[in-house]
Amino acid sequence: MRLSGVFAPIPTPFDESDRVDLVRLRKAIARWMTGPLTGLVVLGSNGEAVLIDDDEADRVITTAREAIPTDRPFIVGTGRESTQATVRATKRAADHGADAVLVRTPGFFKGQMTTDVFVRHYTTVADASPVPVLLYNFTALTGVNLPVAAVSRLATHPNIIGLKESGGDIATVSELVSSTPADFNVLAGSAATFYAALCVGAVGGVLALSAVLPEPCKRLFELTGAGCHDEALAMHRQLMPMARLLGSAYGVPGLKAALNLLGYDVGVPRPPLTPLPEAGVAALREALAQFEVIPA
Amino acid sequence: MRLSGVFAPIPTPFDESDRVDLVRLRKAIARWMTGPLTGLVVLGSNGEAVLIDDDEADRVITTAREAIPTDRPFIVGTGRESTQATVRATKRAADHGADAVLVRTPGFFKGQMTTDVFVRHYTTVADASPVPVLLYNFTALTGVNLPVAAVSRLATHPNIIGLKESGGDIATVSELVSSTPADFNVLAGSAATFYAALCVGAVGGVLALSAVLPEPCKRLFELTGAGCHDEALAMHRQLMPMARLLGSAYGVPGLKAALNLLGYDVGVPRPPLTPLPEAGVAALREALAQFEVIPA
Amino acid sequence: MRLSGVFAPIPTPFDESDRVDLVRLRKAIARWMTGPLTGLVVLGSNGEAVLIDDDEADRVITTAREAIPTDRPFIVGTGRESTQATVRATKRAADHGADAVLVRTPGFFKGQMTTDVFVRHYTTVADASPVPVLLYNFTALTGVNLPVAAVSRLATHPNIIGLKESGGDIATVSELVSSTPADFNVLAGSAATFYAALCVGAVGGVLALSAVLPEPCKRLFELTGAGCHDEALAMHRQLMPMARLLGSAYGVPGLKAALNLLGYDVGVPRPPLTPLPEAGVAALREALAQFEVIPA
Amino acid sequence: MRLSGVFAPIPTPFDESDRVDLVRLRKAIARWMTGPLTGLVVLGSNGEAVLIDDDEADRVITTAREAIPTDRPFIVGTGRESTQATVRATKRAADHGADAVLVRTPGFFKGQMTTDVFVRHYTTVADASPVPVLLYNFTALTGVNLPVAAVSRLATHPNIIGLKESGGDIATVSELVSSTPADFNVLAGSAATFYAALCVGAVGGVLALSAVLPEPCKRLFELTGAGCHDEALAMHRQLMPMARLLGSAYGVPGLKAALNLLGYDVGVPRPPLTPLPEAGVAALREALAQFEVIPA
Repeated sequence: MRLSGVFAPIPTPFDESDRVDLVRLRKAIARWMTGPLTGLVVLGSNGEAVLIDDDEADRVITTAREAIPTDRPFIVGTGRESTQATVRATKRAADHGADAVLVRTPGFFKGQMTTDVFVRHYTTVADASPVPVLLYNFTALTGVNLPVAAVSRLATHPNIIGLKESGGDIATVSELVSSTPADFNVLAGSAATFYAALCVGAVGGVLALSAVLPEPCKRLFELTGAGCHDEALAMHRQLMPMARLLGSAYGVPGLKAALNLLGYDVGVPRPPLTPLPEAGVAALREALAQFEVIPA
Repeated sequence: MRLSGVFAPIPTPFDESDRVDLVRLRKAIARWMTGPLTGLVVLGSNGEAVLIDDDEADRVITTAREAIPTDRPFIVGTGRESTQATVRATKRAADHGADAVLVRTPGFFKGQMTTDVFVRHYTTVADASPVPVLLYNFTALTGVNLPVAAVSRLATHPNIIGLKESGGDIATVSELVSSTPADFNVLAGSAATFYAALCVGAVGGVLALSAVLPEPCKRLFELTGAGCHDEALAMHRQLMPMARLLGSAYGVPGLKAALNLLGYDVGVPRPPLTPLPEAGVAALREALAQFEVIPA
Repeated sequence: MRLSGVFAPIPTPFDESDRVDLVRLRKAIARWMTGPLTGLVVLGSNGEAVLIDDDEADRVITTAREAIPTDRPFIVGTGRESTQATVRATKRAADHGADAVLVRTPGFFKGQMTTDVFVRHYTTVADASPVPVLLYNFTALTGVNLPVAAVSRLATHPNIIGLKESGGDIATVSELVSSTPADFNVLAGSAATFYAALCVGAVGGVLALSAVLPEPCKRLFELTGAGCHDEALAMHRQLMPMARLLGSAYGVPGLKAALNLLGYDVGVPRPPLTPLPEAGVAALREALAQFEVIPA
Repeated sequence: MRLSGVFAPIPTPFDESDRVDLVRLRKAIARWMTGPLTGLVVLGSNGEAVLIDDDEADRVITTAREAIPTDRPFIVGTGRESTQATVRATKRAADHGADAVLVRTPGFFKGQMTTDVFVRHYTTVADASPVPVLLYNFTALTGVNLPVAAVSRLATHPNIIGLKESGGDIATVSELVSSTPADFNVLAGSAATFYAALCVGAVGGVLALSAVLPEPCKRLFELTGAGCHDEALAMHRQLMPMARLLGSAYGVPGLKAALNLLGYDVGVPRPPLTPLPEAGVAALREALAQFEVIPA
């Protein structure tokens, strides 16, 4: 299974009563499916997965599956803190139609998360999973790091097909590519590092920005693949301000606010998260202006 | 509700098939109840709460409630990442007999966890909780800090009665005491800082070490309260090596290993956690030797 | 050599042309010498030692030596990045009258600063020093930590008499006391942790606050020594706000501003440091008001 | 002044008595000058500048100047903690023949190092410097970060011509390029990030690795410039293991050991640094083997 391209980690809409809103979800996916995105990720960190319970997750997956054509990879985030809960969530996601799962590192017991522990955890999950598994390292949020050495060992598992690396250290991305087999899918986890990651051998990205600006993100991917580095770099530079706003600056509230500006209607974040303050919305509006995507 | 004294955050026993073992739990609690502990905390971080699902949690709470006399405070950890899940867990804990709840800060979306967000989250939980609420700050595990300014604001809520602070910065503990009302219960979260925390005005501690060595921990508390600082300091020093081993060094696997050495029979940690390696067990055995508590 | 008591790490005055001002230095020391301070430290971090060249340092030491009676310990900061520069600075300080030297850890090459490297560095310095040596760990500024294990080994050197620990982790202070001989002088490095450090066995402190408020700091020390913990804790609490302002909040610019408010006339910080902004001066004035020390 | 290309930050040789060895320095430079390096940096962090006094620095600069042809840029590190010492060191370097200076951020008083403070410091230095100034950000060693906003403001100063950025976050490198004028020289500070930095618009690198392997590093630069990304990526990958060893892993002791293996004879590091342990030397020897550069 090759995961080359641009994947959007979409948010989960909530309604005014803090309930998952499947109608809004279906409509937003339908709109994304009119564009060039390679595939979608639901229930990732941008999907507020840690704020959603198992029943809600089932319904989100089922709804998304129906809305996504089978020729576009449909990936579901299923990482949990315990190995057994991760296995259960993975099986449920597969039962409900996931093409692959994206499994965030457990990270609560930081002192105990050694390379051996990670290898055992992911091996158990991959052994049990009916669908291919993507590793997921997001140190800035989890507080733990999945070492290159662990990835290198896990990459030989037949059911582990790739990794999303959300860190910005480009030498690490390069080492992840070098220390895994050629068909192992290393995916960039942030738009700000996407172009450089492609340069050092990543095959794609899971980019919040691509939910907001699918065409430019996909174009950046294609330009790089075609060896048009000057145009790719120009596109990268044009995208950087929005990439930064959606990344460390505004997070999930920023992603939802940007999508709402564009008419996607994805509602508000779930508490304790709060909607982006108006000053942030204004900054997003300004940064989006040059792309001529905001409806009049 | 005054929470002055020594509270043991007890582990959750699992059996050989990675299931919660209520029989072992009941027996272990019965043994603790023969000693001087002020009260117990179940489903805290040492209870591996993040690895346990809601149904298991209900059974742990019910079992513990039956085993703990009503004159000893029975506290249940109910912190979740979302506000609504925290409220639900809190209500269930109260329904199943908790005297108070200990609510860890949410921490996944680190960039968004401002003072205002924490105040809103805890206010919603405390408003909805049928039982008193304890705040819980454990920066080393959550990666976020509950600022003194947030605690100071929350301490005026009639249903928020105290805080467990697990950090070792003693000036912060002192400021927490100074910036909250006199009847607000500031509890130390680690045995290594317990004595100093009492010196600057904390009224007790939630100490993993006290599950292993209840008598010495309680004696340290009493000596300090009686103004016997020389004896208290001597007891503190005697406890430090074990405090360090159970704290940053060995974590939950260490706590379970130590208790098993003493005959408590609390089983193994839940994966991805693994049992303490033999070298660690040997170190615990040696550190425990001077207390003459290991059965022959 | 026993270093029990309260030591003020005094700032180095600069004049309007960014030159060391020895007249101001002499006058300020004379005023401190009318009070209860146990001794003084010059050219520590609060003395802006890293901003001062060797010739200036010689003149500061000579001037201070003349102004300090021989019955009060006169300590000079001589830590440098290279071992040989530290030895040279130490010998010069001794030649110019230092009673002891305070040697900050080297810290530029962070990856190489192992326990063995620290032990070798300090052993070389202590072997060569004509006067007793104090270790100095200030992780927040140097970015490296002098481990308890290194201190424990170095404490057996006949010419290493103690340690200034500027970190706030009280368990570490306790371990430093426990793992060194009874006559090894563990000194707290910040006023905010001073009282708790005394409780766990420190014998004194090197406190910027004590340059500003010598009497209350000395009183806190004496009350603790006399076992009057209630009064000591009350004094600690009264001092905390000023301790925080002079510590992490305002640094050297804050110390100079506070002293200038009290009429010490210690000039401005050396660039790149800048004088404390007026809002900070106002906060200091307000915090000092309750001590009735500001001249009318 | 355009600084496009590959610059080697060379080490400073010390003899068996811990003295600067100018004979070894001259010989090593002569050998480097037979190769393709664009220019040299002396007294940078790899030159152990923080371990060297001012008189030694003068002699190193004079000796290097004589050994380096005037058509290759000769850059001298002159960053100090105080602004006035930095100005003095900069003027001395210019007097002794430096073509440009590389000025590391001051970093001791971490809490006070704001954007405004950095702008004032560098402006004063650049105003006073007879030669062009390069900014230098090395957060991993200094513990402070020179923000993009500060660089953007400083880049308009007519005497500030560029920046060495040693961090590995590629999005930051990209932003540094985007937020400075087209003729501002952004240089990568580590070989592990060099190729990706070139991809996002850096014009060259100051690479410890290029002292050891000048030809491959220069070739990587030229391939990228020529748009031969496949060959460039292959060269990058071949260089990564050595880049990692010389970077975070072994530091200055590693650089000296590698050069000694190749016959450069640069002596040992200055204490407290110690020579690389034999296991490290063996790892370097193995990593160098594929380049066929070690003399038989």
